[in-house]
Amino acid sequence: LALTDPDWLMRDTFCMWCRDSGLSVTVDRVGNIFARRQGTEDLRPVMVGSHLDTQVAGGRYDGALGVLTGLEIVRWLQDQGAVTRHPVEIVSWSNEEGARFRPPMLGSAVFAGALPLDRALATTDDAGMSFGAELERIGYAGVVPVPGAAPSAYFEFHIEQDDILEQRGADLGVVTSAFPVRGMAIRFEGETAHAGSTPMSRRRDALVGAAEVVAALPTLAERHGDQARASTTRMDVWPGCTGIIPSEVVLTVDFRHPQDDALAEMTGQLDRIIQRACERRGLGATTESVWEFGSGLAFDRELAAVVRRWAQRLGVETIDMASVAGHDAYWLATIAPAQIVFVPCVGGVTHNEHEDIDYARVLRSANVLAAAVLDAAR
Amino acid sequence: LALTDPDWLMRDTFCMWCRDSGLSVTVDRVGNIFARRQGTEDLRPVMVGSHLDTQVAGGRYDGALGVLTGLEIVRWLQDQGAVTRHPVEIVSWSNEEGARFRPPMLGSAVFAGALPLDRALATTDDAGMSFGAELERIGYAGVVPVPGAAPSAYFEFHIEQDDILEQRGADLGVVTSAFPVRGMAIRFEGETAHAGSTPMSRRRDALVGAAEVVAALPTLAERHGDQARASTTRMDVWPGCTGIIPSEVVLTVDFRHPQDDALAEMTGQLDRIIQRACERRGLGATTESVWEFGSGLAFDRELAAVVRRWAQRLGVETIDMASVAGHDAYWLATIAPAQIVFVPCVGGVTHNEHEDIDYARVLRSANVLAAAVLDAAR
Repeated sequence: LALTDPDWLMRDTFCMWCRDSGLSVTVDRVGNIFARRQGTEDLRPVMVGSHLDTQVAGGRYDGALGVLTGLEIVRWLQDQGAVTRHPVEIVSWSNEEGARFRPPMLGSAVFAGALPLDRALATTDDAGMSFGAELERIGYAGVVPVPGAAPSAYFEFHIEQDDILEQRGADLGVVTSAFPVRGMAIRFEGETAHAGSTPMSRRRDALVGAAEVVAALPTLAERHGDQARASTTRMDVWPGCTGIIPSEVVLTVDFRHPQDDALAEMTGQLDRIIQRACERRGLGATTESVWEFGSGLAFDRELAAVVRRWAQRLGVETIDMASVAGHDAYWLATIAPAQIVFVPCVGGVTHNEHEDIDYARVLRSANVLAAAVLDAAR
Repeated sequence: LALTDPDWLMRDTFCMWCRDSGLSVTVDRVGNIFARRQGTEDLRPVMVGSHLDTQVAGGRYDGALGVLTGLEIVRWLQDQGAVTRHPVEIVSWSNEEGARFRPPMLGSAVFAGALPLDRALATTDDAGMSFGAELERIGYAGVVPVPGAAPSAYFEFHIEQDDILEQRGADLGVVTSAFPVRGMAIRFEGETAHAGSTPMSRRRDALVGAAEVVAALPTLAERHGDQARASTTRMDVWPGCTGIIPSEVVLTVDFRHPQDDALAEMTGQLDRIIQRACERRGLGATTESVWEFGSGLAFDRELAAVVRRWAQRLGVETIDMASVAGHDAYWLATIAPAQIVFVPCVGGVTHNEHEDIDYARVLRSANVLAAAVLDAAR
C-alpha cells in the first residue's frame, strides 16, 4: 500500500536499480519517482512507466510490470549504446491504487495539474495519517515542483485485467479509449436504537437501507449491458457494535460504462434506488462525487500507430481496446501524447493474489514497447 | 465501553461512593464489583444491581440506573438504620453490553458458571486487546473466585427500552419471561477482483451476497409478527479498499422471538436466504452461533409477588411483561430467584444519546424496589 514501510523498501530498491543502471533519479513533491537516461538534445523526455503500489489482496503485475518493463527497456538501450535525441524517463507514480489514500491515480493527477498539491498532501488514510506526513516519513517528499513538465510522449505497459486478449489470442491491446468512471460516497443517516427491544416498525436502520442499495447494483448494471459496472468496494458502519442498530453507513460506490449518457442514466437510477430505500427505512442520504475520470479521453493516434507498426514488424497481433480500469496514463493523456499497451493476464484474474502472466507472450509485447519507445525518443 | 479509561474512572467513582456509604467493596476475577452492607446473620445476600458499561451511542440510564438505584436504596437503609438478617449487596456486572467484548452479559455469565473464566479473559476486542489484559490494566482483575456464590435473591432495576409502559400509563413492569435470543456470525467468502475491469458475470462479490441477506431481514421478521426481531449490528468487510471487490464479509445478526419454535423457523428461513444469496453470487458461507440466551427462562414468582404487593401498597400500577433485551438477571435467574423491574423510558428511545426518563415516575418505582429489597433482606 502507498507510503507504507514495504512501499519505502520497494522505492529504495527501485531507485538503487535505476542508479546502478546509470540513471539520474529525481523525486517530485508528491513522491513520483523519475529515472532519466539522457538524450543528445535538450528536449522533453519520452516517459515510460506505471506504479509500484498495489492493493491489500493485489497481485505481482498490476503496476509493477509497467515500471520494471520501463527499467528493462532503458537497460536494453544502455546495453545497445543506443543514441536518442530525447531523454528517456522511467516513472513510478505515487498511490495509483487509491487503496490507502483516495483518490486513486493521485500522483499522476497532481503531476498533470488536475489535483492541487495541498489537497493531495492533506488526504488521510483510515487511521488519520496524512499523505504528506507519510511521504515525509518514508523520505519521498521530493523537491521537483508540481505540476510537472509535460513529456513528449508517455507509454504505459499494463496487464489488461480482463480476458479479452486471451480469448481473442492477441498478445497486445492498443488502448484507444477509456470507460468513464464515477466514484461516489453515499452516506446514510438513521438513528441508533436497541437491536432487540426496538420494534422493527420503529427503526431507522441505516444498514438495512444501505444494504438494499448494495444489493440492487448488479441488476442496475445488467440493465445497461455487458459493459456496465456497478460496485461497492467499502461499507463503513457506525457504531458497528453488538446490540445496537447502526445509524450511519457510508458506501463507496464505483460506476463505469463506455458511454457517458448510459453512465448518467445509471447514476440517475442509483439516485432513485437510494431515495426509495430512504423512504422505506426513514433515512436521510447524501451522495458525494469522490472521483470522476475517463470521460472524453482519447489516447494519441500517432503513438498508437507507432505501436501497431512495430507490432506488425515483430509479428505480434494487436487489437484496439477500451480501458475499463483507471490508469495514470489517463492524467498524462490530458497534457501529452499518451498510449497504454495492454498485455494478457491469465484468466483476467486481477486485484487478486493469483494474478499471473504468460511470460513468453508478455515478452513479445515488451519488445514492441521497447521499439516504440526508441522510435519516439529518436 | 467496558474496560476503557472511562470505565476505569467510573468504577473508581462507584467504589468510592460505596466506601463513603460504609460498604465493603470486593471485586471478582472477571471484574464484577460487589458492595456489601452487612446483615445480622450469616446468610446469602440480597443483590440489587445492573451494569455501568454502555454503548458507543448509548444513553445515561441503560445499566447505570440499576446500579445507582441500588446504591440509593442502601444509603436509605443506612439512613434509616434498618436492620436486615441478610446482607444487601449492590453489584455492577462487567461488560453487559458486549459492545467492545463479546458475548454480551459476560460478567454475569461467568458469575453464574455459564461461561468459563479463561474463555472470558481470552475474548479480544477489534484491536486485538484481550479482556483479561484490559481488566489487569484498569486494576479490576479481582481475587474473588468465580463462579460466584448464589445470592438469596437478585433484583435488577432497568429502563424498559420500549414504550409499552408509557403507552399503558403504568410506572412499573414486572418481568415474567424473556424473549429467546440468537446471535450469529455469518461469514461470506468470495474472491477479490478489480472493481472496474472485472465483468459483473465473473464476480464472486461477498459484499453483494451479504447485503442481500441484510436487506431480507426486515421482511423475514415481519412474517413472524410484531414481536419478531431480526437485526444486523456489524458488517465487517475485507479488504474494504477502493478499487477492489470484497472477498470476505462477516455479519453479526441478532434474532429474537417470544416463541422458541418461531425463532427456530426464522433461523431456518435465514439459512435458505443465505443459501440462495451464495448460489446467486458464487459464494461460500458459514454460520456460527455466538450467543444464545433467554430460552425457557422464568423469573421468580415469589419475588414478583413481593414487587406487586409493594407496588399496590404504594399505589404504583404494574403490568407483567416479557423482556426483549438481554439482562444480567437472565444469568442470575439460572442460579437464584431473580426479578427484573422495568421502568418507563421516554418514547422507548434507547441505545441512543437521547435516552431519557421521567424522574417522578421512576422514583415511584424505585420506592417499590426499595421496599421489596428490604422485605427480601429481612
